[in-house]
Amino acid sequence: MMAMTRLEQQLSFCIELDKLKGILRQSLVMDASRRENSAEHSWHLAAMATLLSEYAAEPVDLLRVLKMLLVHDVVEIDAGDTFAYDTAANLGTQHEREQKAADRLFGLLPPEQGAELHAIWDEFEARQTAESKYANALDRLQPLLQNHHSGGQSWIKHSITREQVIDRMNAVKMGMPALWPTVMKIVDQACEAGMVRRS
Amino acid sequence: MMAMTRLEQQLSFCIELDKLKGILRQSLVMDASRRENSAEHSWHLAAMATLLSEYAAEPVDLLRVLKMLLVHDVVEIDAGDTFAYDTAANLGTQHEREQKAADRLFGLLPPEQGAELHAIWDEFEARQTAESKYANALDRLQPLLQNHHSGGQSWIKHSITREQVIDRMNAVKMGMPALWPTVMKIVDQACEAGMVRRS
Repeated sequence: MMAMTRLEQQLSFCIELDKLKGILRQSLVMDASRRENSAEHSWHLAAMATLLSEYAAEPVDLLRVLKMLLVHDVVEIDAGDTFAYDTAANLGTQHEREQKAADRLFGLLPPEQGAELHAIWDEFEARQTAESKYANALDRLQPLLQNHHSGGQSWIKHSITREQVIDRMNAVKMGMPALWPTVMKIVDQACEAGMVRRS
Repeated sequence: MMAMTRLEQQLSFCIELDKLKGILRQSLVMDASRRENSAEHSWHLAAMATLLSEYAAEPVDLLRVLKMLLVHDVVEIDAGDTFAYDTAANLGTQHEREQKAADRLFGLLPPEQGAELHAIWDEFEARQTAESKYANALDRLQPLLQNHHSGGQSWIKHSITREQVIDRMNAVKMGMPALWPTVMKIVDQACEAGMVRRS
């Protein structure tokens, strides 16, 4: 069998990416008509990142942030979406499942390109750099807006408490501290409206 | 009524963006289970842009390309998706409908940020710069891969000819000339398989 050319490797990865459109998240789109998939979620985060970078806790390299957000969920193609408030058992195996997925998926690319994206994905997961803190903040902020605007059905369905939401929003406090008062206002409104349990 | 703060304007635009997830294109996702929406399409293009920039006809500012691809379809929130092979009547009013949509949507943002994105969208539409030629090439290449891999149902449904596809792919020839042999190979295969009419 002939080895794939560099371009063929790249296009095979591009084709594989299409599967992310079939990975459903727990959040509903804002008109509450259906669950959001991870591809459109990734687009929403990347678009928001271009608009809100002035609120990042530290100055960020926006190109690196965008690359990170565009690939941050591709591991779900193999590992599936793990719900933020999932059982300990599922959350416990998430890291291993996702590492394996990253190895296979980024392994489809020419080696140096695959290694670059794998490193960017590792960086997102480790949440140590300015870029990954900002990217993780957006990854929490967007579902908050989404849940709030879609009537909180995902919170209600899973009986989520105020404490759980605030704990989850810690990444926003770290990565976009100027957004914290807005986050708290939304959480308070969601409690008032009965979307989130007080305890 | 109190004027909106800068942050409130930005978040209202971010919330408005969610509507792009409800704009359906003619192309099917690759497993052919449903039509693709413009939000996930935009994500797919942006992800591909990060991987294929070495094939751009001229060197590109990748950050500008990504911003362009992330917003290139947002006008469809008001103007709807116009099918590439639509009637002359619909194609004729497309420009005016989309300009009006751009004015309203980018007008939700703080003025200097709205003006920046409006200019990037205008640049995409005008196809004069290296960045917009590359972005437009990707906007043609991705649906080609998509249609080919989903069994060509969108081509078959609309009785699309080889000439129409090749004409549509001209943007790839201009923006990513190294991809042209690949495009022709896919078109030939699609003809062989009866997905595209020979004339």
